[in-house]
Amino acid sequence: MNFGSDNASGVHPKVMAAMAAANDGAVSSYGRDALTRAAADRVREALDAPEAEVFLLGTGTAANALALAQLCPPWGRIFCHRTAHIETSESGAPSFMAGGAQLALIDGPDGRVSPDALRARLFDYPQVDEHDGRNAALSLTNASEWGTVYSPAVVAELAGIAHEAGMAVHIDGARFANAVAATGAAPADLTHRAGVDAMSLGGTKNGCMALEAVVFFDPARARDFDFRRMRAGHLWSKHRFLAAQAIAWLEDGLWLRLARHGNDAAAELAARVRAAGLEILQPVEANEVFVRAPREAIARLRQAGLRAADWPTVGDDEERATIRLVTSWATTDEEIEALSAQL
Amino acid sequence: MNFGSDNASGVHPKVMAAMAAANDGAVSSYGRDALTRAAADRVREALDAPEAEVFLLGTGTAANALALAQLCPPWGRIFCHRTAHIETSESGAPSFMAGGAQLALIDGPDGRVSPDALRARLFDYPQVDEHDGRNAALSLTNASEWGTVYSPAVVAELAGIAHEAGMAVHIDGARFANAVAATGAAPADLTHRAGVDAMSLGGTKNGCMALEAVVFFDPARARDFDFRRMRAGHLWSKHRFLAAQAIAWLEDGLWLRLARHGNDAAAELAARVRAAGLEILQPVEANEVFVRAPREAIARLRQAGLRAADWPTVGDDEERATIRLVTSWATTDEEIEALSAQL
Amino acid sequence: MNFGSDNASGVHPKVMAAMAAANDGAVSSYGRDALTRAAADRVREALDAPEAEVFLLGTGTAANALALAQLCPPWGRIFCHRTAHIETSESGAPSFMAGGAQLALIDGPDGRVSPDALRARLFDYPQVDEHDGRNAALSLTNASEWGTVYSPAVVAELAGIAHEAGMAVHIDGARFANAVAATGAAPADLTHRAGVDAMSLGGTKNGCMALEAVVFFDPARARDFDFRRMRAGHLWSKHRFLAAQAIAWLEDGLWLRLARHGNDAAAELAARVRAAGLEILQPVEANEVFVRAPREAIARLRQAGLRAADWPTVGDDEERATIRLVTSWATTDEEIEALSAQL
Amino acid sequence: MNFGSDNASGVHPKVMAAMAAANDGAVSSYGRDALTRAAADRVREALDAPEAEVFLLGTGTAANALALAQLCPPWGRIFCHRTAHIETSESGAPSFMAGGAQLALIDGPDGRVSPDALRARLFDYPQVDEHDGRNAALSLTNASEWGTVYSPAVVAELAGIAHEAGMAVHIDGARFANAVAATGAAPADLTHRAGVDAMSLGGTKNGCMALEAVVFFDPARARDFDFRRMRAGHLWSKHRFLAAQAIAWLEDGLWLRLARHGNDAAAELAARVRAAGLEILQPVEANEVFVRAPREAIARLRQAGLRAADWPTVGDDEERATIRLVTSWATTDEEIEALSAQL
Repeated sequence: MNFGSDNASGVHPKVMAAMAAANDGAVSSYGRDALTRAAADRVREALDAPEAEVFLLGTGTAANALALAQLCPPWGRIFCHRTAHIETSESGAPSFMAGGAQLALIDGPDGRVSPDALRARLFDYPQVDEHDGRNAALSLTNASEWGTVYSPAVVAELAGIAHEAGMAVHIDGARFANAVAATGAAPADLTHRAGVDAMSLGGTKNGCMALEAVVFFDPARARDFDFRRMRAGHLWSKHRFLAAQAIAWLEDGLWLRLARHGNDAAAELAARVRAAGLEILQPVEANEVFVRAPREAIARLRQAGLRAADWPTVGDDEERATIRLVTSWATTDEEIEALSAQL
Repeated sequence: MNFGSDNASGVHPKVMAAMAAANDGAVSSYGRDALTRAAADRVREALDAPEAEVFLLGTGTAANALALAQLCPPWGRIFCHRTAHIETSESGAPSFMAGGAQLALIDGPDGRVSPDALRARLFDYPQVDEHDGRNAALSLTNASEWGTVYSPAVVAELAGIAHEAGMAVHIDGARFANAVAATGAAPADLTHRAGVDAMSLGGTKNGCMALEAVVFFDPARARDFDFRRMRAGHLWSKHRFLAAQAIAWLEDGLWLRLARHGNDAAAELAARVRAAGLEILQPVEANEVFVRAPREAIARLRQAGLRAADWPTVGDDEERATIRLVTSWATTDEEIEALSAQL
Repeated sequence: MNFGSDNASGVHPKVMAAMAAANDGAVSSYGRDALTRAAADRVREALDAPEAEVFLLGTGTAANALALAQLCPPWGRIFCHRTAHIETSESGAPSFMAGGAQLALIDGPDGRVSPDALRARLFDYPQVDEHDGRNAALSLTNASEWGTVYSPAVVAELAGIAHEAGMAVHIDGARFANAVAATGAAPADLTHRAGVDAMSLGGTKNGCMALEAVVFFDPARARDFDFRRMRAGHLWSKHRFLAAQAIAWLEDGLWLRLARHGNDAAAELAARVRAAGLEILQPVEANEVFVRAPREAIARLRQAGLRAADWPTVGDDEERATIRLVTSWATTDEEIEALSAQL
Repeated sequence: MNFGSDNASGVHPKVMAAMAAANDGAVSSYGRDALTRAAADRVREALDAPEAEVFLLGTGTAANALALAQLCPPWGRIFCHRTAHIETSESGAPSFMAGGAQLALIDGPDGRVSPDALRARLFDYPQVDEHDGRNAALSLTNASEWGTVYSPAVVAELAGIAHEAGMAVHIDGARFANAVAATGAAPADLTHRAGVDAMSLGGTKNGCMALEAVVFFDPARARDFDFRRMRAGHLWSKHRFLAAQAIAWLEDGLWLRLARHGNDAAAELAARVRAAGLEILQPVEANEVFVRAPREAIARLRQAGLRAADWPTVGDDEERATIRLVTSWATTDEEIEALSAQL
């Protein structure tokens, strides 16, 4: 019953096999190899973005922070939801990578930036002169940290507001596959066709070992990103092992099948939780379920083997607390049944 | 009728005379001179802080950002009111100087951090592991950006919460003299005796030309600050001209007399504004008055010579806007009368 | 005939197998798992350093830059050989990670810092006041970028000079296994017993996929390093796959056997090159051979399939150029024979 | 007999008077005032550079570091003489301001970069890929730290090499007036007409209190420099007092007369030193004289009241040491006579 994190899951067998298969003979290092070129092509195809520039690296924090540093000057401001991973869980990585940039936090229900809240926040930061910093980028997490998703229409609306304000738009796609699976939208419709300028496409949580792609839809935005990645220590020398992951993960839609599995498991889990009379805090659209329950019930479940993160939330009290259940490509029916039996 | 900014005022004649008097012969550069030592002593006396380490420099942004960088690691978080100058008007200087630190914004009426709001914000940033960054410092602006002040008791309460959370406490004292004058409190009671660890003591807005002091009440906190100031380009070579300002400004309580003048002028101004039936947005405790008025009235006043900053505020509408009136040591009765006549 | 880089070699089968074996079930992420704890123990045992703090990550540049950032304040100076990887090939990563630190380059034959050259360089940077920056760290690459090694005695002598000057000592051990194999010294004698404070222990070039360990021999030096690694994006979520590499690589001395293989291959290669009458630029002690040869001979070898890096060196001229041949754990007799046949 | 530093001198009476005169009434802050506009015009006229963008600030370190940060990306490299102030005496400020840039040190006699040494250094940093960082800027100090100057022809030759290598050219002009006075060249011929892209024009050492101008000859290079200056805390609020200095200092060629006075004093001092049989280490072209003398003689002179900096130099020994004598606009005949009498 491990619902602690999608990072707790392992590597999909096909991805692991591809890594082993890539381990044959000598190959040029630092991404100057055929496998890396092929991986970039696969990413472009998956996103239907033939002009995009693609860079592979190993962690989601690096992908987000480096991508944002490319979009935001050191004196710039990155707008994001107040529960965004870049705000809560990266120990300041975007600011570090961008040389001192600031985050401007946006409210909005269910972990989603709402257009009105974005507009309100822009109002807080008029752009009169150099005291004000530069409003530079909007970062949207899709699927969000609260397991909800943005539709193409909403992304487009938010991107429109951002562009009008002179800002670039970034998708934190650590769980982008889950968003694609949940919305049924084409990846391109969720990104560049909706006005997205750059994204972090995450494989790690969804069947890879350590694989993220930073994508710039307009190649001009990628200028000198290779230097940026290098001097942050994120250029793998044995780069083929990043590439092999990407290729296997994207092949024949594996990435989306894995995401669908995770989403379906979350939906099933949510149904069981609801059936047990427990409160679920937001719509379950991707692979996360936030449950508020009596503290003693949570303790009992944990004793029975449940792994789930504490998620202190406004509204918790002495009686009841919130936990986060995350499913993944590797979640089994047995785990869901086991939890269900305990509920 | 220049109520645009206290930075628009000039230099008090005594300060200017002291600078001229200091211009005599050759003197060791970079603060290795007798005048600088005397100035540091004067600051320590004014704050009744004989152990404090004192550093002089030329701008308030530098004073704040360098002081905070000393209190906050690159992966740290600085808590401040959402209208704090370090957030709205320094183009990211604290984050830059601290190597990537983040601000966590706190709500609270009248430009003041409230204890409850601080506690709520700390709740948002649990300190579980390295993902979370480090809650490192609380910065309070006294007098605040909205012309209100913190009393010694409130500073002590907030500092207590901060210390309990493992954070250091900083005062942005760009208008600290106004806070002292307004509260009638001893400077020491508003700072180190209330638990403050470091402060930026601002002379520039209050009769100096370019003079701020960074003060660390515990000398251990000042370690290597000389390097930090140097490599940020804030070590004046002809340092005696900073020192001369400090000495003249603090002499015989000039700094507090100047602040009192500014505060009194603001009180008088507020009375006239109220008498004219216009709305004032918050208590007028220091040297700022925020007035909401019909847009056409504002336009008319400007045509009549008023200088005041636009201050777009939630609650403004098509009819009415907000402006900020700032008084200073140099505000004259004539200016107030002139404005009053127009109201 | 791929002698282009040890990064061109693949992953040793035992390491690959260990990664596959680690892919079983759900495991806590971010290094909070048993495998990671075991890996740290293995590193401590290999270095005979039971108190050391050990952090795993994926690239050598990150290991160096983050370790040095821990030893050097933003206003500090890192002394290293003028051919050190941190100077020539990391695009400024140490300075970036350390918030603006500078490198001070040291001369010395054969890619090695000599004690006299270190002393001369320290003379260049007297420590009078804050203008001077802080002389903070000495970084030695062992084995060096020129395929030479430092003995325990020389490391100790250099560390003594550094410590006397108030500096910490770091080993860039991207090829540390080669240095151990070449000197026959105990790892501890090449590091903490010789006064080394921190090291980057490199697995990637020597049979791993992406595995480096940052080691602090005095745990006090490791303070907050977890935050530093995190906010640089170098904390792997599926951390077990770093750990699995480390364990397999260190098990039963595999790391040293692999290094010995590489060193022996280089020695053999050097013998063949010398026999062919070509010039070798420095003693061949580890796994690199720098050959100066007629440009047309180099072109011919490349046409015959040789992969080797251009290595423009003072002394090259229109006739003759320098190339670098690197062997690895994976170099085969056939490759050496093939090159030999072409010579 | 204060020859310790030109920073030990005071402020020229005309500059001081101009500052007092500027202290009249309320004026817009942050450089949005008429005096600041006039000052920028005066700088443009002095440099015969009508298109140039001009920014005023208070310290030479800030001027250099911010200007270079504008020319050099965070992963870039700034080439300069190994005795350049930006290398030896700014505690890493350029690297800090540029987000981690590195310095590449160049040899050359008498404190001057020689064309051959520049070419040799560029050879050390081939530009193959992202490992190599970016060769971004050449910084020349004119007059140099050793009191020598570059002629327009030499600046042009060096700038040509730099431009060919894709680098921008910066002049550290902390003593630029002395270079103009020494060469007799037009300021424009020493800068933009010789290919210089940006400069720090220093007033502080030469009669001002705290006044430096950062000049970009091509306005496109100045993009967002206002943000850069702001977030480094170098935007003065009472900006008119920077402007007043600039205007008075440049008026009627005062800056050059003051520099000529300093240069003449140095020449006279050198003649006396030579007549006394002491060694002078390099040509005396501007306002610095480096004297090697028996240590006891130096001690005696100091006892007699000499202020001069120790300047440990290769070639010093147990018997003899090197000191630096600096003259300035304020050096008097009496001081020279007094020293002469002691020699």
